[in-house]
Amino acid sequence: MSNKEVFEEAWSGFNGRLWKDEVNTREFIQDNYTEYTGDESFLAEPTEATNKLWGRLQQLQKEERAKGGVLDMETEVVSGLTAYGPGYIDESMKDLEKVVGLQTDKPLKRAFMPYGGIRMAEQACTTYGYQPSEKLHEIFTKYHKTHNQAVFDVYTPEMKLARHSKVVTGLPDTYGRGRIVGDYRRVALYGIDFLVAEKEKDFANCGGGEMTDDVIKLREEIAEQIRALKGMKEMAAVYGYDISNPARNAHEAVQWLYFGYLAAIKTQNGAAMSVGRISTFLDIYIERDLLEGRITEAEAQELIDHLVMKFRMVKFARIPSYNELFSGDPVWATLEVAGMGMDGRSMVTKNDYRFLHTLENMGPSPEPNLTVLYTVSLPTNFRRYASKISINTSSIQYENDDVMRPIWGDDYSICCCVSATQTGKEMQFFGARANLAKCLTYAINGGIDEKNHMQVGPKYQPITSEYLDYDEVMEKYNDMMEWLAGLYVNTLNAIQYMHDKYYYEAAEMALIDTDVRRTFATGIAGFSHVVDSLSAIKYAKVKTIRDENGLVVDYEVEGDFPRYGNDDDRADDIAVWLLKEFLNKVKKHHTYRNSEPTTSILTITSNVVYGKATGSLPDGRKAGEPLSPGANPAYGAEKNGLLASLNSVAKLPYEYALDGISNTQTINPSALGNDFEERNFKLVSVLDGYFNQGAHHLNVNVFGTDKLIDAMEHPEKEEYANFTIRVSGYAVKFIDLTREQQLDVIARTCHDHL
Amino acid sequence: MSNKEVFEEAWSGFNGRLWKDEVNTREFIQDNYTEYTGDESFLAEPTEATNKLWGRLQQLQKEERAKGGVLDMETEVVSGLTAYGPGYIDESMKDLEKVVGLQTDKPLKRAFMPYGGIRMAEQACTTYGYQPSEKLHEIFTKYHKTHNQAVFDVYTPEMKLARHSKVVTGLPDTYGRGRIVGDYRRVALYGIDFLVAEKEKDFANCGGGEMTDDVIKLREEIAEQIRALKGMKEMAAVYGYDISNPARNAHEAVQWLYFGYLAAIKTQNGAAMSVGRISTFLDIYIERDLLEGRITEAEAQELIDHLVMKFRMVKFARIPSYNELFSGDPVWATLEVAGMGMDGRSMVTKNDYRFLHTLENMGPSPEPNLTVLYTVSLPTNFRRYASKISINTSSIQYENDDVMRPIWGDDYSICCCVSATQTGKEMQFFGARANLAKCLTYAINGGIDEKNHMQVGPKYQPITSEYLDYDEVMEKYNDMMEWLAGLYVNTLNAIQYMHDKYYYEAAEMALIDTDVRRTFATGIAGFSHVVDSLSAIKYAKVKTIRDENGLVVDYEVEGDFPRYGNDDDRADDIAVWLLKEFLNKVKKHHTYRNSEPTTSILTITSNVVYGKATGSLPDGRKAGEPLSPGANPAYGAEKNGLLASLNSVAKLPYEYALDGISNTQTINPSALGNDFEERNFKLVSVLDGYFNQGAHHLNVNVFGTDKLIDAMEHPEKEEYANFTIRVSGYAVKFIDLTREQQLDVIARTCHDHL
Repeated sequence: MSNKEVFEEAWSGFNGRLWKDEVNTREFIQDNYTEYTGDESFLAEPTEATNKLWGRLQQLQKEERAKGGVLDMETEVVSGLTAYGPGYIDESMKDLEKVVGLQTDKPLKRAFMPYGGIRMAEQACTTYGYQPSEKLHEIFTKYHKTHNQAVFDVYTPEMKLARHSKVVTGLPDTYGRGRIVGDYRRVALYGIDFLVAEKEKDFANCGGGEMTDDVIKLREEIAEQIRALKGMKEMAAVYGYDISNPARNAHEAVQWLYFGYLAAIKTQNGAAMSVGRISTFLDIYIERDLLEGRITEAEAQELIDHLVMKFRMVKFARIPSYNELFSGDPVWATLEVAGMGMDGRSMVTKNDYRFLHTLENMGPSPEPNLTVLYTVSLPTNFRRYASKISINTSSIQYENDDVMRPIWGDDYSICCCVSATQTGKEMQFFGARANLAKCLTYAINGGIDEKNHMQVGPKYQPITSEYLDYDEVMEKYNDMMEWLAGLYVNTLNAIQYMHDKYYYEAAEMALIDTDVRRTFATGIAGFSHVVDSLSAIKYAKVKTIRDENGLVVDYEVEGDFPRYGNDDDRADDIAVWLLKEFLNKVKKHHTYRNSEPTTSILTITSNVVYGKATGSLPDGRKAGEPLSPGANPAYGAEKNGLLASLNSVAKLPYEYALDGISNTQTINPSALGNDFEERNFKLVSVLDGYFNQGAHHLNVNVFGTDKLIDAMEHPEKEEYANFTIRVSGYAVKFIDLTREQQLDVIARTCHDHL
Repeated sequence: MSNKEVFEEAWSGFNGRLWKDEVNTREFIQDNYTEYTGDESFLAEPTEATNKLWGRLQQLQKEERAKGGVLDMETEVVSGLTAYGPGYIDESMKDLEKVVGLQTDKPLKRAFMPYGGIRMAEQACTTYGYQPSEKLHEIFTKYHKTHNQAVFDVYTPEMKLARHSKVVTGLPDTYGRGRIVGDYRRVALYGIDFLVAEKEKDFANCGGGEMTDDVIKLREEIAEQIRALKGMKEMAAVYGYDISNPARNAHEAVQWLYFGYLAAIKTQNGAAMSVGRISTFLDIYIERDLLEGRITEAEAQELIDHLVMKFRMVKFARIPSYNELFSGDPVWATLEVAGMGMDGRSMVTKNDYRFLHTLENMGPSPEPNLTVLYTVSLPTNFRRYASKISINTSSIQYENDDVMRPIWGDDYSICCCVSATQTGKEMQFFGARANLAKCLTYAINGGIDEKNHMQVGPKYQPITSEYLDYDEVMEKYNDMMEWLAGLYVNTLNAIQYMHDKYYYEAAEMALIDTDVRRTFATGIAGFSHVVDSLSAIKYAKVKTIRDENGLVVDYEVEGDFPRYGNDDDRADDIAVWLLKEFLNKVKKHHTYRNSEPTTSILTITSNVVYGKATGSLPDGRKAGEPLSPGANPAYGAEKNGLLASLNSVAKLPYEYALDGISNTQTINPSALGNDFEERNFKLVSVLDGYFNQGAHHLNVNVFGTDKLIDAMEHPEKEEYANFTIRVSGYAVKFIDLTREQQLDVIARTCHDHL
């Protein structure tokens, strides 16, 4: 068959022109998807194969938990595209697997990934009783420098101190930066050879012969990308597949796409390894096969179930400090459904149902991190189905397509927990968080850290008065935030530079346009506490309590003050100011590769660790207590019910937090109504109302605190094995959280009325 | 002993202040050296130890030659500062070695250096019958990318083609770039701990917290430099020396300095690994010891002899194509004597005599590449002694201190064959050569290479007339040179970028100021042929001879024309124009790290290989014949004797060729006079006259063609074992040249009259 015939066969029945001449997955989707407005009645039950494989996988997960969280670990082989032969969930059932491919040679076995940092990789081994390879130690200390080593080579003492004192936190300087979403659909739509040819064209056109540093850097990157694409072919060949050419049917499309993703998770261990917006894309292949009678709905569901099973199996070797920050072994295999097209059509397809349905067919699960791109314009049937899944599984999150679409178009993916990125056109320099709450204590104490008594910030004049004066605090806070923003951006510049140099994401970038847009994602921690503290200083009387060295270590608040989370503009205006001010300060600085600075208000589970490192605050929060997560109001601050709380968060302008504003809420089922129909109706109304105000994100949990307490006390109960909850930006099996974090979750407001 | 006391002891008797507070070797020298104007009568004969060690080394050199040029080779250990335990010339005589330290564990054994390119390193092994390590192959293909791989990752097809067709040639893209001269004296004067502390200060002051790419890059480099300094201490400790503190006497000074150089040649395999300007510096230590009666002249000479013996032992593993380019296994361990201070004092010391005297004590030798920084202002005794050594050994070269001093100051070193560099303040991006002769054929043939018939240059209009028109040729040549200069600079940009990234010279740069000046050294090949060709076109009639494709492949010249090398301004003006024009075209382009572009007219022995790749030229040189080397007039062009030839070369303005203008001349002893005294007097006069006109460089050979022919035919004769000649920019043992190159040397003009 000629090359032309190969493509004609693979693309037979597909409409459109543009995407056939050059890589343009978005155009392909728009030209070919079939909107679905019906209800979920078409969905199929799991097949026998699915039940068997999922049963086996659950058994493995149980063994994993019994072994302390890690089932198996590699110590002798460096992870790579072709580091292993084929691996299956169960060798004896391998013919049942519709979608094949493991990160290593065995299920749930964690790979050895030293490029980010050899010490991290080795500590991960020894933590779980494995002995790392001496040979690899030699290679990654003597011959190949790691990203971690390089970053520490260039850090300033100030950066190290700020990092140590956790006023900047969660920096990706010991492992992959993650948050880069390859357009894995391209592997299915075009096959590798086409993609290589396109990258070769880009290489030929890069620089026009002028070898400036930027051009040289990019040319080398393209060369590495081409190498990675060729490596993906070899990787697929290990499993008996030739992915040189486009997928010819739904089965191949799912498999080809997964190989693209597998390449990413074999070569990178970023905190977030998103899958991206694949649902509508794959539906086109399934629809074609259904139409041509080549597949049944049960088979279609089986493909999606098996693909999702693979996403549930993604594992990385982590160290204890990482696990404290990101509890419950998350990988942010984030995957989107729904959303609207730029042309006004809903992009909901049957496949969106199928992906949500996996939570029914195989029970709740934290991964993939299922995300509904929500708007009131989505078909009612779909909104109700999503709400139903939330009520039954608490496993999905919602993001406002109406605020994201104007900025990112209609083919964005969520590249971490909540951050949007244009699929295949953009990459992100991920940058963790600045602890603005701690920054406030530095402003008050003249740059001295109240925990370790070190001069971490600049030696500005501390506040010496007994009672805090709002104007004085604001002036000093402004100065200290100015310092922190600069230090933070420059620390990230160093990290991103070294990541490109020592741990470049060739496989992911190979599936992204060469002329890539780069965002520089900063983040804020301690948001609500700063807002409430400033409100307390402004509207009440805050008295300082000093230790023997004169350092302010606590506060007494006299009188009441408005708090963020109650739809009270006096507090909420401070929140808006804080967000804008921080981003403006960030934007003053040079950002690596002239990337576009953005910020976020999201903290994952790290709010607990960040809180531990943060002293008492003027809002009444005591030293060491968890910060409230993301953009959530402080625990106990919300006095006016769920809707007032949501109204406060919705006031934060998304344009100033393009990296995301994470909000997590737990609703007691009884607050929604007495029966399922009423609850479902109410939850849809809540979502419609919230997002119509321009809010960005909502994690929806539907359960009572009682259930959490019971699960904490009796994790052995079968019903809690897969009990999944949404925390800030991702979902997690509740019993996988540390007790400390379980207590934190329990302490969060559970709304008993709307 | 306190740290202060340690320094007081080491520096006791030394004058000056500035150099004691911060690194400033030049100031130390100026404050402390003792000019010597006497004659050579003080010099001592070799000690018994010297004779024994040198005898053993000669034996080893003989074995090396018998084994085809390589005595032993490493295959399992990657070269590095501490890759080996101690090694000696002869284990049984190790107590005789006053200066210890080998590149590997055995004398003349060549190290395995894969960072520049694993294929090159492996080919070097297999060429000489060694089997390279599979483990290292894996490491340097799978885990650590090499400079060579990286460069080829980014080259454009045009660059590869130009490289393949040899219109740009000798690019350092498979091994170290070389030409970086660490200030090895610093190790002796300050000890490592002081140097580390200074670099740590630089690190602290680098960037002021702003992490731009440049700052990050430099900070990482400083971190690597500090690591290298610490590594040097470990390396010295292997030999039982603690070099943390300054050297306390001449013996330690020589040893410490050598350890600094040893660090360079253990970690880098650049074509040129210069030693630098160490003679006057070391004399200060020797003078102090002599004055205090701690050392005798015989012992002083022994130190220098043993140090020089070490420089004669430097070896790298090379591949056949490299050996063709740089014949006779040169390493350019270039070492300077003499020169004047900025204050008008001659810097000639007894030590300068001692270094030249090594050629008497241990016979002629190509290495170290002994260079006299010449001016008529040097003491007459010294000029006569240098001239005597030239007449007796043909092993030294002369460079004009009067033209270099105003530009580079009085502490420059020669970083390759003839190129000056400020010691410890500067580094060079070495860049091989553009073949301007070949460029002329491209101009005539519209960018088509006459050898491989490929379109290498741009598709400009070729010349279609039968007879060449000067104006038309000049216009087309101008355009083609414009293209070549741009391509050349950009190719070098890629090479230098990747060298910094994958094969950074941490050990050498550790001994250079952090705030380093960087030059970007381009070079010209085929110089005299272009000049003569253009002169032929202008002053005679040049008829083109075309092949069946219409390509001009040869020329017939009707009539006579002035040639470069006869002191005829008609030709020499073209030479000046060509040099200026090329450099101006180079300067139009961005150069890596904003380095300062320079150019050179020097070709080493590569004139033979370059000539092979170059078609016939309008000056009468036929296709494949060697080009004339460096700035030398074409073979046979010189009709008016040595002085006229020298006059022509002297017209080239050094300001436009700051990287050097190499001129090599051979004088029949009889042309200089009938007895030694007359010859010596005449040679000094020739040098005085030549350099007084502003000429830059002269290689002086004093022998007749008969001797060369006899040596070629009878290499086994004992007298030819160490028979050394100067070729373009370095010295070589004549019998180590390929026959082709021997014939080339024989073909060069041997002046029988002045």
